[in-house]
Amino acid sequence: MTKPLTPTLDRVAGPADLRGMSQGELVQLARDVRHEVISNVSQTGGHLGSSLGVVELTVALHAVFNTPFDKLIWDVSHQSYPHKILTGRRDRMHTLRQGGGLAGFCKRTESEYDAFGAGHSSTSISAAVGFAIGRDMGQPTGDAIAVIGDGSISAGMAYEALNHAGHLGKRMFVILNDNEMSIAPPVGAMSKYLSGLYAGTPLGKLKDVAEGFEAALPGPIREGARRARQLVTGFPGGGTLFEELGFDYIGPIDGHDMGQLLTVLRAARARASGPVLIHVCTVKGKGYKPAEIAADKYHGVSKFDVDSGTQKKSKSNAPSYTSVFGKTLTDEAARDSRIVAITAAMPSGTGLDILQNRFPQRVFDVGIAEQHAVTFAAGMAAAGLRPFCAIYSTFLQRGYDQIVHDVVLQNLPVRFAIDRAGLVGADGSTHAGAFDVAFLSNLPGMTVMAASDEAELVDMVATAAAYDEGPIAFRYPRGEGVGAEMPERGRILEIGKGRVVKQGTQLAFLTLGPALADALKAAEALEARGISVTVADARFAKPMDTDLIAQLVDNHAAVVTVEHGAEGGFGAMVLHWLARTGRLDNGCAIRTMTLPDMFIEQASPDAMYAEAGLTVADLADTALTALGVAPGHFAKPA
Amino acid sequence: MTKPLTPTLDRVAGPADLRGMSQGELVQLARDVRHEVISNVSQTGGHLGSSLGVVELTVALHAVFNTPFDKLIWDVSHQSYPHKILTGRRDRMHTLRQGGGLAGFCKRTESEYDAFGAGHSSTSISAAVGFAIGRDMGQPTGDAIAVIGDGSISAGMAYEALNHAGHLGKRMFVILNDNEMSIAPPVGAMSKYLSGLYAGTPLGKLKDVAEGFEAALPGPIREGARRARQLVTGFPGGGTLFEELGFDYIGPIDGHDMGQLLTVLRAARARASGPVLIHVCTVKGKGYKPAEIAADKYHGVSKFDVDSGTQKKSKSNAPSYTSVFGKTLTDEAARDSRIVAITAAMPSGTGLDILQNRFPQRVFDVGIAEQHAVTFAAGMAAAGLRPFCAIYSTFLQRGYDQIVHDVVLQNLPVRFAIDRAGLVGADGSTHAGAFDVAFLSNLPGMTVMAASDEAELVDMVATAAAYDEGPIAFRYPRGEGVGAEMPERGRILEIGKGRVVKQGTQLAFLTLGPALADALKAAEALEARGISVTVADARFAKPMDTDLIAQLVDNHAAVVTVEHGAEGGFGAMVLHWLARTGRLDNGCAIRTMTLPDMFIEQASPDAMYAEAGLTVADLADTALTALGVAPGHFAKPA
Repeated sequence: MTKPLTPTLDRVAGPADLRGMSQGELVQLARDVRHEVISNVSQTGGHLGSSLGVVELTVALHAVFNTPFDKLIWDVSHQSYPHKILTGRRDRMHTLRQGGGLAGFCKRTESEYDAFGAGHSSTSISAAVGFAIGRDMGQPTGDAIAVIGDGSISAGMAYEALNHAGHLGKRMFVILNDNEMSIAPPVGAMSKYLSGLYAGTPLGKLKDVAEGFEAALPGPIREGARRARQLVTGFPGGGTLFEELGFDYIGPIDGHDMGQLLTVLRAARARASGPVLIHVCTVKGKGYKPAEIAADKYHGVSKFDVDSGTQKKSKSNAPSYTSVFGKTLTDEAARDSRIVAITAAMPSGTGLDILQNRFPQRVFDVGIAEQHAVTFAAGMAAAGLRPFCAIYSTFLQRGYDQIVHDVVLQNLPVRFAIDRAGLVGADGSTHAGAFDVAFLSNLPGMTVMAASDEAELVDMVATAAAYDEGPIAFRYPRGEGVGAEMPERGRILEIGKGRVVKQGTQLAFLTLGPALADALKAAEALEARGISVTVADARFAKPMDTDLIAQLVDNHAAVVTVEHGAEGGFGAMVLHWLARTGRLDNGCAIRTMTLPDMFIEQASPDAMYAEAGLTVADLADTALTALGVAPGHFAKPA
Repeated sequence: MTKPLTPTLDRVAGPADLRGMSQGELVQLARDVRHEVISNVSQTGGHLGSSLGVVELTVALHAVFNTPFDKLIWDVSHQSYPHKILTGRRDRMHTLRQGGGLAGFCKRTESEYDAFGAGHSSTSISAAVGFAIGRDMGQPTGDAIAVIGDGSISAGMAYEALNHAGHLGKRMFVILNDNEMSIAPPVGAMSKYLSGLYAGTPLGKLKDVAEGFEAALPGPIREGARRARQLVTGFPGGGTLFEELGFDYIGPIDGHDMGQLLTVLRAARARASGPVLIHVCTVKGKGYKPAEIAADKYHGVSKFDVDSGTQKKSKSNAPSYTSVFGKTLTDEAARDSRIVAITAAMPSGTGLDILQNRFPQRVFDVGIAEQHAVTFAAGMAAAGLRPFCAIYSTFLQRGYDQIVHDVVLQNLPVRFAIDRAGLVGADGSTHAGAFDVAFLSNLPGMTVMAASDEAELVDMVATAAAYDEGPIAFRYPRGEGVGAEMPERGRILEIGKGRVVKQGTQLAFLTLGPALADALKAAEALEARGISVTVADARFAKPMDTDLIAQLVDNHAAVVTVEHGAEGGFGAMVLHWLARTGRLDNGCAIRTMTLPDMFIEQASPDAMYAEAGLTVADLADTALTALGVAPGHFAKPA
């Protein structure tokens, strides 16, 4: 496909230009923005479907509200590409999700139009309440508008925020972007009717009008309208939840009908005195057939051919850690009927869809509800089951208190499968799995493993399945494995025992997780300079293999720990133990290599680890420095 | 008051004995249990009001359900004293909340009747869903019954669990213990009518009966019944939320009417096929007038005189940290209109009631909703306000992801006031503030302070108020200060700078927070043995005062860090920095004293710190060991 013509978009420098446009021009603009999104994402990859779903909504919001004085807050914000295109970032869209380029999410440092950044879900309403209070207390800020999807609004955090917002009664707007359902004709009919009436009707009355209209519809059509509401709100009463929480509820309206959007948003803006929820129905992938037909497959896409819709997946050399986890757990589950698994709205992202296909009754998708997911797993463990709670490292942060209070304090054998540990590439800093080893390894009785390759992951799944003594976690990175030879069946590892992969005499690397491969390469480089290197895989961050650590420290001039996690994790625990046992003073130089004290922006994982100072060359240089052979200059050859 | 006669209770060895009792005997038993609770708590202190509110409910639950095979899960579990009395722990109730005694909460290790422990709120439904799944998958466990208060059920986590339970449709029971409202006569009337009809009515029909009954009531009485439902559910529709989430809703019933309780519980047990919510209205403090009249004052009590109701508060020598925080923040707020404060359902526990009395519009109580609290604060900071988010250390764990993702990643100047840092005494391990320094100090751009006394706290409040560069936290312990001379107004501390409190030459203590006083005493003891000791107060766990640390390490034979927090916190950050800069190898012995890798059970704070190995003698001994002058034997004099 050749680059599409976008005459209306070409006239737009920023949202202010939208405010003088006619409805017809805004329709044209939406058409152009849609083409632009498809064209851009076909080159960069990214969140196509959700962005296509909100093209008209984005245009209408910027046309009606006075951004950036008014604060537009996109929940999760993977749907923000049209917003980015309209807010001065069109010329950088080709850099999306790349190193040095635009982030895939909203980011306050990227644009004044990004009122509140995100990446994790269900935060937007809380932030909007904060802005609303700020405005009412005299801060120079206008209206607060949260745009949140039907999946995100069902999370506990969003419920807490709605509850508080309704209680406060402050003017603010929540746009419920509902793409679970297609828009049935009666809904559209009602909405049109509603929108037509709307302009002259005070907000309070609007509901009555809508309800009256709904009641007056002929039976089958009325049923359709009711179903529409029910799908959205979960309540046959329709909108009851929001209304009873203190919100004015408007909708559902057709999120691809510019006329309806403008009418409703303008009226709401003109008249709202308290919190208003506007329920907008959209179609994920709208306007691009391949994405409309297979919304799940086009949620996040790689580069693709616009005409055919074919995604250009890079050929993989090894299975992904995710699929190894899913397959291994399925094997274990086939042997042990007590094994069950829990996911928080990510069955395919976690690989649990593999288990689900085989044993549908043994996978529990609790929705975006990490707090519940963890304690639910604790309950199952207390009942005698063997639950695997599979949550990405970054999202497991949502269940931290439940890990401490419900799982660890009670020593319940919940298995935590922690995918996306370490830096994750294009999703950037909001999705980094940086903190899990640190926040798990100081919990009494916890066991924490990290897989150095996909074969080790198989062993760790087997180990976790067999371990009933208490909570156990294992972490593994995003992406494909290293091509390790795969065992037929996982071995049960001895708890708290690492392994020496390569024995040397002068310097030792002690690694946790996939840093092992880097250490082996660094060892090669060092041996080329005549230094004899030991490389050990700790396997366990907790309990630590103190025999191994003692050996390394007692028999080498320097020991360097390496992990893909923040400070306070494995290296810190090693240091604490060395200090406690007096071994810090025995003459062996110690260095702990961790993620640095900064957030790393999106790029390729390799580039991110380079920025983090965790390349092979960095390892070798740190080793040389520790040995007192400085400077190494492996990292920056002269 | 003399010890009351309890003839019926005296016949009870365990819940099985209740199952043969007549309704009249169970009423007598409840009377005895109530006397016993009052008598016990008057001697031990504890959660009187909530326990008195559930006496009849507890008796009825154990009489109807087959505990411990059926799993009774008390949310928060501060209301579990009647349960403890009936489940074989009566003779140890005098040890409640004391070292070596019964815990103030449910604890799986304490009794097989404690199916799931708690301390934090809103976890019971999640656990119950887990047990229900376990039963359905063949584990040897019976019914799951969660008992949860009206405050706890409004938290996001409980909503997530209800949502999931309704979706699953498994048989389970949620008892909503509603003590926000007194039971108006019409409600009781309806309930009686309802209970009478109940025994012979299939569950599904029951609702219709109730609704029919309600509709048939005369106007004013009908209004009362409706109001009762609304108070509970937040929905005028009455029970709608629960019903629409997929629960059968029964109630409201009078939680002090044994006949109603038995009838409804028996019928529900006999007939339920899916999730059932039984709405029980109780009066906090029921049966003890002083507690009924002032429910808030009798929520948690110290020892008291039964006849007069007078609590025996120990005389304090210094103001509590909590009140110092509240007063200082109020002073700052009087000077700066941008200061606002957030609490998650604990205005008086945090001291924010002081600010609330002065500026009611500037304190936001969001309910039990820590996730929302943190991101709401982030939104206010983004809008230009200066929010203080006041949450106990242990509960801040609930907002961890929001701290990382919404506050720190965006570098928003939210001020975290972290009360109850360190070990907290009678509330025990569920409430320990052990992890905050660790989970905050590895977050890029975060500032973390700890007050060594109440005067320092005043300075830290002032420092946080003035600091707009990013997020900042300050922690302080439970209880009263050390009697420090209080400044007229807080000084603004230099960020990242500690202070040398006492200069010596051989050994240095570097403390964070109130460990300072212990270090000063340990220094005295050491100096009596001829060792010259420096004592420094780090003030900041992040950013660290690296000049100070370098000085200490360069000029002393040993440096001992001391903190009231888990490993991975301040000491770990010191070690990381020393390793990174090569200072671990310079001959100075380093020790890091932290909370040990175990949960510490309730006792007096002093006894808990003794078990933790953080007494003055432990500090002195560790110093001697580090100096190579071993053994010290300060801790256990010969």
